[in-house]
Parts: sequence; C-alpha cells; structure tokens
Amino acid sequence: MATLLHIDSSVFPGEASSSRSVADAFRRAWEEQYPQGTVIYRDVAANPVPHITADAHTAGFAAPSERTPEQSAAFAARVKLIEELEQADAVLIGAPMYNFSIPSTLKAWLDNVILLGRTAGANPSAQGTPVTVVASRGGSYAPGTPREGYEFVQNYLESVLKGALGMDVDFIVPELTMAPRNPAMAELVPLYEASRERAFEDAVIKAKELAGRLAR
Amino acid sequence: MATLLHIDSSVFPGEASSSRSVADAFRRAWEEQYPQGTVIYRDVAANPVPHITADAHTAGFAAPSERTPEQSAAFAARVKLIEELEQADAVLIGAPMYNFSIPSTLKAWLDNVILLGRTAGANPSAQGTPVTVVASRGGSYAPGTPREGYEFVQNYLESVLKGALGMDVDFIVPELTMAPRNPAMAELVPLYEASRERAFEDAVIKAKELAGRLAR
Repeated sequence: MATLLHIDSSVFPGEASSSRSVADAFRRAWEEQYPQGTVIYRDVAANPVPHITADAHTAGFAAPSERTPEQSAAFAARVKLIEELEQADAVLIGAPMYNFSIPSTLKAWLDNVILLGRTAGANPSAQGTPVTVVASRGGSYAPGTPREGYEFVQNYLESVLKGALGMDVDFIVPELTMAPRNPAMAELVPLYEASRERAFEDAVIKAKELAGRLAR
Repeated sequence: MATLLHIDSSVFPGEASSSRSVADAFRRAWEEQYPQGTVIYRDVAANPVPHITADAHTAGFAAPSERTPEQSAAFAARVKLIEELEQADAVLIGAPMYNFSIPSTLKAWLDNVILLGRTAGANPSAQGTPVTVVASRGGSYAPGTPREGYEFVQNYLESVLKGALGMDVDFIVPELTMAPRNPAMAELVPLYEASRERAFEDAVIKAKELAGRLAR
C-alpha cells in the first residue's frame, strides 16, 4: 500500500499550469501502478499553510510540557505537515519558477516541515525518500543559456530537499512555458513544445520506474 | 526630504533578531542624517502581505477596464506595495536566512512588487535605487566554507533586486548568529561576536555614506 505525497504550488489551475499538468501525469501513472495506494494531496496555492512563526519555530526546541498554548497550536500544525511527509513512500512536488525562485507558498511549506532533530539533522526521518520535482519555468535557465545564473529552483530544492532532508531528489523540467503567450519568444515555441512533450513522457516513465523500484 | 523604505522579515522581535537589530542601527543612523525624512516601515513577519495569486498576477497584464472585481482588488494591494518601493530614495531589507533561503514572507513581498512593465523589464521604475540588505545567518556560508554552496539569500537577492528590479544592491552580513545558543558552535562565538560588531559598524557607516551620496 504505497503512499504518495503530492504537493502543488502553482497559482494557476489545472491545464493552465505546466507544473500541475506534468505532476498530474506523474500521479496518474503512479496510481495505475498502485490502484489501492494512497495519495495525500496538498495544494499550497489554494490552501496556503501558515508562514513559519517564532512560536512554531521555538516550539520545536521546547519540551511539550513547557510549550505555551500558542506554541502547542503552531507546532501541531507543523507536525501534521511533517507526518504527511514521513508517511510518504514517495513525494511529488509541482514547483513553478516565480521570479527565479519557488513560490512563497512552497517556501512556507518547507519552513514548516524542516525541523532539526526530526526531519533534519542526524538520521532525518524522510532520509532516502524519493522526491520528484516538476520545476517548470517560463524561460530557459539551462547550462549555457544567458539566464543560467538566475536559476534558484532546482539549485535551491536540491540543496534543501537533499542537503537538509536527505531525500533522493529528481527533477522534471518543462521550460520556456511562456513562449506560446509571449510574442518575443515566438521562435522558441518549437523548443517549448519539445520540452513539454519530454516532460510528460518523463513523468510517466519516472513514475513507473519509481513504482517498480519501491515494489521490489 | 528623503524617504527610506524599511522592511523587516524576521520571525523574532527586536533584539532577539540579528537582522532587525542591525537594520535598526542602519535606520537610526539614516534618521540622524534626515531628521525630517520619511521612513515607510513594513514588517512582513508581523503583518504578512498576501501570497501572489492568479488574480494578482493576471491583473498586471489586463487593461484596468477589463479586470474582474477580484483582479482589481488583488492588483490594488500590489500597487500599494509597489508605490512604497517607487517612493523610496533608499530601501533597507532585513533578510534572515531560513533553511538556506529568504523567509516565505519576504518572497511574498517580492512576488507582489516585481511587475513586468513597471518595476521589471525595460526602464524599471526603481532602477538605480540603493537597497541595503541585512542578510543575517545562523552559520557561515562565506566563500571557502563547507556551506558555501548552500547560500540562497545573497545570491538570490542580488539576482532579483539587481537583475529584475535594476536596483543598486549592497549587503551587510552578520553571520554565525546561532553560535551563542548552539553548544556545538561554542568555539565560533568569537567569530560571531566579531561579525556582529562589524555588522553594526557597517550599518552606521553605510547609512551615513548613503545619506551623503543621496544629498549630493
């Protein structure tokens, strides 16, 4: 009974969002492999989790009996998110690039789930859990492109998901998603279409491959 | 009559926050130079601005007469933040590092104020405005340290404030701020203290230097 934690963070609904569409393809391929499995779905754009607060932060370093009611409440909300992560056999994150980085809603989720002594630090609780990130972006930030140095989604999520949480990170990168809507990018439309097609193929291949690996 | 836009984003109040304390020193030195000046203060931790939404985003590319009521309301909130930025002769941002990057509240502010065709793109409206960032951090991420590759505050804010908004970016970096509270960092306390002292000195020097430059 496999469990997938699926997080979306695009402000756009459904097919208007590349990250949602590709993540959805991954999820459907996963569900085909695990028809009896569980998917925990969290849409942090539609239903944002709280920003981290001093109470939520300090509660993590206080004994339960010493927490104020405010700390206890804030910490309970964090633990709910952390348990979703810990329950997952695999994680899927839709992470569109906004202003060169991840959405503020996704950062808020990360600030809640990264807890030293539990999900981070020695023997982190989600260590080794595979996480597939759909890192969609309006332009291209690939190595060798002019915007290479402005890429703070893959670089950052690699550092935090792998470096802090010890997870096994993989990326699917549909790029140039603004091309069909931006006349200045008209000549990039074929590259966008190729990237999109590859992303959908990757989603299915990676979901099946991952399901097979977990089933072994 | 100089105007300073001062933004804080630490979850900790007052002196418990390095970024707030050092930014406060900068602000006080600035106010000494401009006793008749204006300070616009925005504490995005205590009073978070909304995450960017589809309405707030798409409104920026729709004619005012064609906006839905939801778009108009969301856009008005963005414009208020943008006008604060545009009114500023100088900007001061307290940007503590949380999980290797900026607070989610600060990212939400950035996603609101970065607007293609106004603050970003050709002739951005805050182009050349000096912005001083107090980038405090619990450890050291300086070049040559083991955590060098995990620095997504200075690198990111340089890219977005300079690269997207065309601002003139400067940093003050109090680091190793966790040293006094983390027994494993005990031997780093002298380096922390030196970094803290330098940061407060830098704040005063930079505020005075900037005030003098703007007055010319």
